[in-house]
Amino acid sequence: MRKKVVLAQMSTIPPTDCDKAGTIKENAKLVKQLSAIQDKLFAQNKYSVLIILQGMDTAGKDSAVKHVFSGVNPAGCNVMSFKVPTPEEAAHHFLWRVSTRCPGKGMIQIFNRSHYEEILMPLVHSTQSKAVLEARCKEINVFESGLILNNTILIKFYLHISHKEQMQRLNERRNDKSKQWKFSEEDIVDIKKHKAYKAAYEFIFKHCSQNPWLIVPADKKWYKNNQILKIIVNKLSDYTIEYPQPNMK
Amino acid sequence: MRKKVVLAQMSTIPPTDCDKAGTIKENAKLVKQLSAIQDKLFAQNKYSVLIILQGMDTAGKDSAVKHVFSGVNPAGCNVMSFKVPTPEEAAHHFLWRVSTRCPGKGMIQIFNRSHYEEILMPLVHSTQSKAVLEARCKEINVFESGLILNNTILIKFYLHISHKEQMQRLNERRNDKSKQWKFSEEDIVDIKKHKAYKAAYEFIFKHCSQNPWLIVPADKKWYKNNQILKIIVNKLSDYTIEYPQPNMK
Repeated sequence: MRKKVVLAQMSTIPPTDCDKAGTIKENAKLVKQLSAIQDKLFAQNKYSVLIILQGMDTAGKDSAVKHVFSGVNPAGCNVMSFKVPTPEEAAHHFLWRVSTRCPGKGMIQIFNRSHYEEILMPLVHSTQSKAVLEARCKEINVFESGLILNNTILIKFYLHISHKEQMQRLNERRNDKSKQWKFSEEDIVDIKKHKAYKAAYEFIFKHCSQNPWLIVPADKKWYKNNQILKIIVNKLSDYTIEYPQPNMK
Repeated sequence: MRKKVVLAQMSTIPPTDCDKAGTIKENAKLVKQLSAIQDKLFAQNKYSVLIILQGMDTAGKDSAVKHVFSGVNPAGCNVMSFKVPTPEEAAHHFLWRVSTRCPGKGMIQIFNRSHYEEILMPLVHSTQSKAVLEARCKEINVFESGLILNNTILIKFYLHISHKEQMQRLNERRNDKSKQWKFSEEDIVDIKKHKAYKAAYEFIFKHCSQNPWLIVPADKKWYKNNQILKIIVNKLSDYTIEYPQPNMK
């Protein structure tokens, strides 16, 4: 039996001995490494990479997309930001809109939010029974494992942010001209709502960890991006990703 | 009446007074400028940008995608590389596969090859009459103008490469381990084929210039990328692209 994840007991900050300047330097190196791997991944046309980013509002999903993948050739990398389902999407099975967005061979696909929203939202707003949501989790496990069986390298991140940092970022959004457009008063998350989201994520970790979650401390962007980069580069290094043999006919 | 474009009379190389080191430095600056504009474009959610890259094999379309858009947030930029039409695509109207790939508001969409292949290929291989292809060109003009009327900023590039440089690049592909996978003996373009493509492009410029083409000398990658970057940054600067007003409710 998997040990229960209790988010309140997990750190949202870097280890005390972590050096900021050194980490930022390392990030630049990792971005280059990722870029080199992606060039081969695309050429080889064998593996797909699916990266799932989940986390509460302001946890840094957008910034992860921007910074972690800043060195990646846009020809080999797509980003899908899943929003509130459209009427057409909502009329279908909850995996419908997700399945057509899974990466083709050679491609990196980033899901900014994902099928996990269809567990999260019903839980937070109590619009579905737990039995239905547990059944959905089982489907997700099978769906994800099917992708992996078909040469998809799946990496699932939860960006773990504290309530204090979340409130601070929302205030920044309100006051920074380049971020105000992202802000709505409705976004303000009181501590009760923050805890409800945490509990919903713990439900997901309990029922959807057949393919493991990586929980990344996200209060410091430079550290969060560092962890994401490291995990991706390490994971991809487990596979033989090489330029294919010449195409002589 | 528009003056006829004669590609053989147009330079494929930079002007003699163009300084390579200075241009490369400028490129880095332009990449940053484009990145800043794109951040606002995405936030504003008003304009779409569609960039069409056409050019013969090895003209540097892939490298343009990689270098010109290296600073752009992948969340706001998609690349579509159009290949030989699939049976399903071929069974539809020639604009079918293109129209669903046009950019949404706030997005930059790059077409690596485009609907112009459906003029080019039939011309080079004589599989359609000129009358049919002229009719297609008229449709393209209307289609593109419709996009522009709906807030799409359309920029069409032809990357102009000499036969000599093309042959040299094909030889490089054959011998460079990181490029061999792109190479097939069938790609070798004799001068006759090169001229046939040129003539086909001249046909396109004649009939599809209601929305203008930018012809970029492409024998030197650093200069080609510089011209593309400059044209895009200048064009986007003609529009009022700003962070939107705060979303206070």
